[in-house]
Amino acid sequence: MQSEQPTQSNEKFPELDNNNQVEIHYCTQCRWMLRATWMAQELLTTFDGEITTLSLRPGTGGIFEVKVNDQKIWSRKEKGRFPEITELKQLVRDEIAPEKDLGHSDRKG
Amino acid sequence: MQSEQPTQSNEKFPELDNNNQVEIHYCTQCRWMLRATWMAQELLTTFDGEITTLSLRPGTGGIFEVKVNDQKIWSRKEKGRFPEITELKQLVRDEIAPEKDLGHSDRKG
Repeated sequence: MQSEQPTQSNEKFPELDNNNQVEIHYCTQCRWMLRATWMAQELLTTFDGEITTLSLRPGTGGIFEVKVNDQKIWSRKEKGRFPEITELKQLVRDEIAPEKDLGHSDRKG
Repeated sequence: MQSEQPTQSNEKFPELDNNNQVEIHYCTQCRWMLRATWMAQELLTTFDGEITTLSLRPGTGGIFEVKVNDQKIWSRKEKGRFPEITELKQLVRDEIAPEKDLGHSDRKG
């Protein structure tokens, strides 16, 4: 799925032929910055070469939302909870690298 | 200094009346992700309410650059080293909150 945001140039990094934008929007009042940056590290590690930019966006009012290419894949207010990290990776994977195998935690039974 | 990027809506967060974009562009081959995310955490903590979005941008080829509102404030290739964290905060401060006092490490003598 392509973003409707302006395309960032990857001219210096031709191996990054994708343009996948991930955003984590978190509440600073709730002190969720460390949680957000931990998830950022997990996603950047797992999707090495598949994420163009991961944006951390401080907010307020209990927000915790994750977007991939402007698609909201998680809202704490809607779901009533934070995502498990394996669950979050599956949701990101479905948007940016649907063929990717996430390993043992990704398989059933 | 204002960004020339499209303005993100802060309608949900009227207290964020600024639009300050910070980008850390780092080399994954050099394994600088943890360094980049540590600096991100430091900046988001110090500039609470003053940074709209902090973007982590994976790259290659030894890149380590920091931009504030599209102004490059650090390039490892140009400087020959990484910034000290206090130095980095001063450079960010000069762009987005020039009146801000960064505390004891910001004073001379």
